Amino acid sequence: MVEKSVELLLVEDNPHDEELAVHALKRFKLAPNIVIVRDGAEALDFIFCRGKYTNRTIEDTPKIILLDLKLPKIDGLEVLEQIKKDQRTKKIPVVVLTSSDQEVDILKSYKLGVNSYVVKPVDFERFSETVKQLGLYWLKLNRVSV
Amino acid sequence: MVEKSVELLLVEDNPHDEELAVHALKRFKLAPNIVIVRDGAEALDFIFCRGKYTNRTIEDTPKIILLDLKLPKIDGLEVLEQIKKDQRTKKIPVVVLTSSDQEVDILKSYKLGVNSYVVKPVDFERFSETVKQLGLYWLKLNRVSV
Repeated sequence: MVEKSVELLLVEDNPHDEELAVHALKRFKLAPNIVIVRDGAEALDFIFCRGKYTNRTIEDTPKIILLDLKLPKIDGLEVLEQIKKDQRTKKIPVVVLTSSDQEVDILKSYKLGVNSYVVKPVDFERFSETVKQLGLYWLKLNRVSV
Repeated sequence: MVEKSVELLLVEDNPHDEELAVHALKRFKLAPNIVIVRDGAEALDFIFCRGKYTNRTIEDTPKIILLDLKLPKIDGLEVLEQIKKDQRTKKIPVVVLTSSDQEVDILKSYKLGVNSYVVKPVDFERFSETVKQLGLYWLKLNRVSV
């Protein structure tokens, strides 16, 4: 398996959802190295090593990005587009994790090259179970490029 | 959830792996509607409704394609490229399920837009467990476009 300095990048502006997701990942001992960013601009700064992330290298890609759609500053779909149109970052698996089950969002995400689209369950226990399944699948089963 | 006439398209030329995969999917009551094709040319015929599949419509996309890489007639990477470069079929989730753990295959698959890359375990029980996880994730958790 590939060793990555950051395993999971969580892009989430809702503090409640952030807490639930991190809690589930820790509870099931998934993703010891999580980075959390709270808007689309910071997500792009992290991925493209800009702003306060200039000390990172772009080759040091996370194993998975969990991306909310409705984000401050820059929208999740725009973040997805930037990642997928750049050959250096296209290989990073991006899962949209959102409360939207609108067909327009699902279709746009796939057209922009999303790897997977998951709707956040409203129920606490089901949300926790969903994050566990996401972690198990993308961190343990899926293989990423070095 | 979206109702699809075909839930899972399995592209696999190895009869042993085909049997194991179908057995695991049935055992865990996943994917009642499976279609199996055994080479890359037939996979493309199915997806693009050509040859013996002209009675299908291209909008009737499977919820997931499990795609082997080393295939007769047309290679798995070529099949992947054809699916992902066509706007009508780009939205179909494609998981490469292969015995190759070569970085060149992983990187090429991501560059061509694969949704996920999973290496086949050699062990029977682990293969069965992997197919179960694939089925649960892509047929139950992931959302597809209509």
